[in-house]
Amino acid sequence: MTHKIAILGASGYTGAELVRLIATHPTMEIAALAANSKAGQPMAAVFPHLRHLKLPDLVKIEEIDFDGIDLCFCALPHATSQAVIKALPKTLKIVDLSADFRLRDPEVYAKWYGGQHDALECQAEAVYGLTEFYREEIRGARLVAGTGCNAATGQYALRPLIADGVIDLDDIIIDLKTGVSGAGRSLKENLLHAELSEGAHAYAVGGTHRHLAEFDQEFSAIAGRPVKVQFTPHLLPANRGILGTVYVKGDPEAVHASLACAYANEPFVEMLPFGQHPSTRHIRGSNFCHVGVTGDRIPGRAIVIAALDNLTKGSSGQALQNANLMLGEEETTGLMLAPVFP
Amino acid sequence: MTHKIAILGASGYTGAELVRLIATHPTMEIAALAANSKAGQPMAAVFPHLRHLKLPDLVKIEEIDFDGIDLCFCALPHATSQAVIKALPKTLKIVDLSADFRLRDPEVYAKWYGGQHDALECQAEAVYGLTEFYREEIRGARLVAGTGCNAATGQYALRPLIADGVIDLDDIIIDLKTGVSGAGRSLKENLLHAELSEGAHAYAVGGTHRHLAEFDQEFSAIAGRPVKVQFTPHLLPANRGILGTVYVKGDPEAVHASLACAYANEPFVEMLPFGQHPSTRHIRGSNFCHVGVTGDRIPGRAIVIAALDNLTKGSSGQALQNANLMLGEEETTGLMLAPVFP
Amino acid sequence: MTHKIAILGASGYTGAELVRLIATHPTMEIAALAANSKAGQPMAAVFPHLRHLKLPDLVKIEEIDFDGIDLCFCALPHATSQAVIKALPKTLKIVDLSADFRLRDPEVYAKWYGGQHDALECQAEAVYGLTEFYREEIRGARLVAGTGCNAATGQYALRPLIADGVIDLDDIIIDLKTGVSGAGRSLKENLLHAELSEGAHAYAVGGTHRHLAEFDQEFSAIAGRPVKVQFTPHLLPANRGILGTVYVKGDPEAVHASLACAYANEPFVEMLPFGQHPSTRHIRGSNFCHVGVTGDRIPGRAIVIAALDNLTKGSSGQALQNANLMLGEEETTGLMLAPVFP
Amino acid sequence: MTHKIAILGASGYTGAELVRLIATHPTMEIAALAANSKAGQPMAAVFPHLRHLKLPDLVKIEEIDFDGIDLCFCALPHATSQAVIKALPKTLKIVDLSADFRLRDPEVYAKWYGGQHDALECQAEAVYGLTEFYREEIRGARLVAGTGCNAATGQYALRPLIADGVIDLDDIIIDLKTGVSGAGRSLKENLLHAELSEGAHAYAVGGTHRHLAEFDQEFSAIAGRPVKVQFTPHLLPANRGILGTVYVKGDPEAVHASLACAYANEPFVEMLPFGQHPSTRHIRGSNFCHVGVTGDRIPGRAIVIAALDNLTKGSSGQALQNANLMLGEEETTGLMLAPVFP
Repeated sequence: MTHKIAILGASGYTGAELVRLIATHPTMEIAALAANSKAGQPMAAVFPHLRHLKLPDLVKIEEIDFDGIDLCFCALPHATSQAVIKALPKTLKIVDLSADFRLRDPEVYAKWYGGQHDALECQAEAVYGLTEFYREEIRGARLVAGTGCNAATGQYALRPLIADGVIDLDDIIIDLKTGVSGAGRSLKENLLHAELSEGAHAYAVGGTHRHLAEFDQEFSAIAGRPVKVQFTPHLLPANRGILGTVYVKGDPEAVHASLACAYANEPFVEMLPFGQHPSTRHIRGSNFCHVGVTGDRIPGRAIVIAALDNLTKGSSGQALQNANLMLGEEETTGLMLAPVFP
Repeated sequence: MTHKIAILGASGYTGAELVRLIATHPTMEIAALAANSKAGQPMAAVFPHLRHLKLPDLVKIEEIDFDGIDLCFCALPHATSQAVIKALPKTLKIVDLSADFRLRDPEVYAKWYGGQHDALECQAEAVYGLTEFYREEIRGARLVAGTGCNAATGQYALRPLIADGVIDLDDIIIDLKTGVSGAGRSLKENLLHAELSEGAHAYAVGGTHRHLAEFDQEFSAIAGRPVKVQFTPHLLPANRGILGTVYVKGDPEAVHASLACAYANEPFVEMLPFGQHPSTRHIRGSNFCHVGVTGDRIPGRAIVIAALDNLTKGSSGQALQNANLMLGEEETTGLMLAPVFP
Repeated sequence: MTHKIAILGASGYTGAELVRLIATHPTMEIAALAANSKAGQPMAAVFPHLRHLKLPDLVKIEEIDFDGIDLCFCALPHATSQAVIKALPKTLKIVDLSADFRLRDPEVYAKWYGGQHDALECQAEAVYGLTEFYREEIRGARLVAGTGCNAATGQYALRPLIADGVIDLDDIIIDLKTGVSGAGRSLKENLLHAELSEGAHAYAVGGTHRHLAEFDQEFSAIAGRPVKVQFTPHLLPANRGILGTVYVKGDPEAVHASLACAYANEPFVEMLPFGQHPSTRHIRGSNFCHVGVTGDRIPGRAIVIAALDNLTKGSSGQALQNANLMLGEEETTGLMLAPVFP
Repeated sequence: MTHKIAILGASGYTGAELVRLIATHPTMEIAALAANSKAGQPMAAVFPHLRHLKLPDLVKIEEIDFDGIDLCFCALPHATSQAVIKALPKTLKIVDLSADFRLRDPEVYAKWYGGQHDALECQAEAVYGLTEFYREEIRGARLVAGTGCNAATGQYALRPLIADGVIDLDDIIIDLKTGVSGAGRSLKENLLHAELSEGAHAYAVGGTHRHLAEFDQEFSAIAGRPVKVQFTPHLLPANRGILGTVYVKGDPEAVHASLACAYANEPFVEMLPFGQHPSTRHIRGSNFCHVGVTGDRIPGRAIVIAALDNLTKGSSGQALQNANLMLGEEETTGLMLAPVFP
């Protein structure tokens, strides 16, 4: 049986990444592609790398007949997403890639995203989409909220450690390096090639990045008490990939054991041997996350490093992994593409 | 039925690319990986991006029992390749990725590669591996010689034009821009990141690049008379991708029509509408070749631009395409991966 | 004596490059910086790399008192430039970096730039700013028109050859590779890092790039008859640098001799030994142009390759070189900065 | 008066960078360039970007007549450097760029660099070359030991804070991102463009990087008690530039004030306004170091970020700054080159 898929927001990078992945998915078929600003155009005009595919032309969202759709990916900007999803049929399965349904507490949403949430009833039923930790809820969910790509990276490094109580909860630092595609296809001076290549800088320094809201929500829930991490993202001159270097206080062997145990049977999270560390170039274009641990020369301190591709495991690959579950497919279907190196 | 595959030279980029592609091939299984200098190591130690795969450890070639192998990819350096292939079982199907069996005339080989050919009987049976133009011979071949990656690019732009007689054969210029992975994983000062990034330069200027031997052989055979092109390769600060800008004299519309007709039913060669041109980033990581044509402001001149990924369509993807044919599989099996952009 | 300098359009890359160069110029002082859209801001807010310099804040053009200015660089977009320059004092020395005063024939300007020229009397007195070939006129000029960066590259490769009659004038092909800063700091989707890095493509294919107007004007004037070249620019994933690969028909030794003779005493044009070729990374950040020649394997054909930094020798460095002449300074003053490699 | 300069190890990147800087230094003249492996070659053959300069050919060290040399830069690998410097005239002024004379305690040297020190009497007189903090000693020194480039970055962020007692000395984390030229021009697989571009990874994780020896020595000396920091370097896909993100516990305003006070009159260290942060691309090719401070959302924690060019301020620029002092020149002479952006 083939599942009919719609993608809303198909003119952005995460939309295009969904199409790339679904292109070789054996039981999904793209039935509709929406991008209001480019409606009427063929997808190949917007993303020439997809020109070999037979794809429906881009349409406006309101032109889609959702009766024929089994699952809808929503790759729209936050705020836009909630308005659109609110208006979709209440029985339609949806994987949302925006920030709109990640935060359970509407006041937290309002604080970090600067406005009241307008689809509270949808938010109430949304399941947080970090597959490895919400697998069963996702299987039964109608609406799944994809995680932030940075938020996913930090959580792969830290969730088992918090759950197992092997680290000091009050002294966690996430120093993260991210590729530029995470910022999307938006026209900003600081995303120009001439501004970004051959250099690096930090942004949202001091605890102002919105993905902190996800860290706070998830880590506090696991710990059963408030947990606040330090988080400093940096922009790399690379298109894809996030490297999260996480500094924790705890026994390094216990830290490694906790993570190794958590991911022993996970198809997409690869635990490296103690003392080895991942590189973003070894997960590029794939749904894999690599995690490594080393002890510092200062006893009782460990460095955990996690790497994933922001567009795949951090966004569209995760979304497809969740969609597989929601549609009763094998979780890994269409997602075992090996990383592209070099 | 699953075909058992061996890869000789698995520690180079084309070897790793073969593994990447076969990883999701439904009817091939990697039974042996050889790399003499790294024998004994797991593949993940040499290429960490493949660590999620269950792969045999690297061995020496002589350790492989070829009785259990259905097809062998040989991704060794030229000269080495002929010695190895000469010693393999005479019934083993082989796809060679080196330059050793591309040239039919041993004297031409000796001239361009600086030494006598040592496996003439193998060379005699080898079929040139540009799939779209040697499909039937490849289907029945025991030994297929993969083409040079630059040579493939130029031929996709030019073969139909020469066959159809729509261009001046004495005034063809191929100005080619290539990514650095085409030079392999060899330790050369001029391949260091600090030497290559943020710049461009030409090399082998003036008609000294060895892929000219393939152009001469193939174009002359098509034309039925000697054809000599000008060919200047340039090195780009990019890992993958070749862009071949080809200057020809002929009617631009006829040039486009010739190519469009030749590739109308090809699964991997995409002809762009007249006046549009390809970009290497739109074929990255895929087996697709994009070709475009524009007329110059000077009447009677056309620019043909072809783009492909040197490691995929220019090498390992082509090899797999040929292996599919040799094993009786659908030509496209395992090769429909969409390009990775951005 | 210190010359008081004004820069109009200081918020663009060529404006910033002027400031960088003048920063260590011993007899120039920046007295005014104008950028209408950023007026009121300190230069360091717009270009943090200049924060160590004591610079006047950005102002609107009309706020500048030109009485105290000895020379004005105008780094504004074309069309804007002519309107601004028309309104400046008629005695003010001006080096314009736009396209507005490069073309002597107003009809040619109108054809290539899509609009009537509105400052014809200024255009009439403008001198074309390719220093090595207009040195004496520039020395006495009030208004000098900086050349296009691609146009400069092609002319360094070709002017002496046309003047000396050593090549076929009807078969010249310029295949040019350029870094992205040549496109300026403008917000265009195709200039985003995620769109450009790790790839290459041609643009303005077929003879539509505006710098062709300069080639036509200059080469025809030298030859004394119409000369039309083929010119295909390509965009590289690099910020700075142009590599022009020029295909000519003529005796390669004569081609080399012609160029070597022309540039024997030039301080900024370096002729490489026969058979050697330049790389853009070896002129980065400097005012030098490197030129090399090789003969092709086809007799009677030569490849000339020229490399320069589009922001320096192709634009702001050239402008400063011309300003030195106009102010009676040594031509090389402040411009002998060595290239930055790696 | 012109100072005659010799550079030993001129075929490496720091050697070339010294030549680049001295090229426009008004009172220094390069009298000898040594590179044993390339002796006999002109410098332009090894570094074509320097071809416009009149430079002596490369020679072996023993061919240099040191009588005519006023100051010698030694840009050799560690271990080699001590043997060479031991044999140089005892009155020759020397700036060493290797690690050999940075560590005062020979046992510490032996521990981190894996061998006994063989020039202890030279080590005894060597002054640590972090100019801003050893200015007076350097002025009178015969032998100055250039700092590690990472070590310099971390010290600019931390020395004043330790001296002023405004941070917790037991909880300092330096997460550093460095460009690839810091690894030199050595032939290592992991320095190839295809291995490095478009990705990031950590190395020497857990406190094994040798520059920790410098941190330990210097920070402990300032504090008057042992100080051990955590330090994790990462390799960036960029040629130049180090970004050091330093996590400290202390009052953010006091942290900013301490640094602002320390660098108020420094010509090369630029303190950014509170809440602003540097980018490596804004110091590229220059001798400037930019430092910024922000408070974290967690009270009592601050993030200090320092950026410098590893080849300039982190190595050859620093060396020249020190040489100026040793020769009685103005410290900034020849070093006020503005950063190259973009």
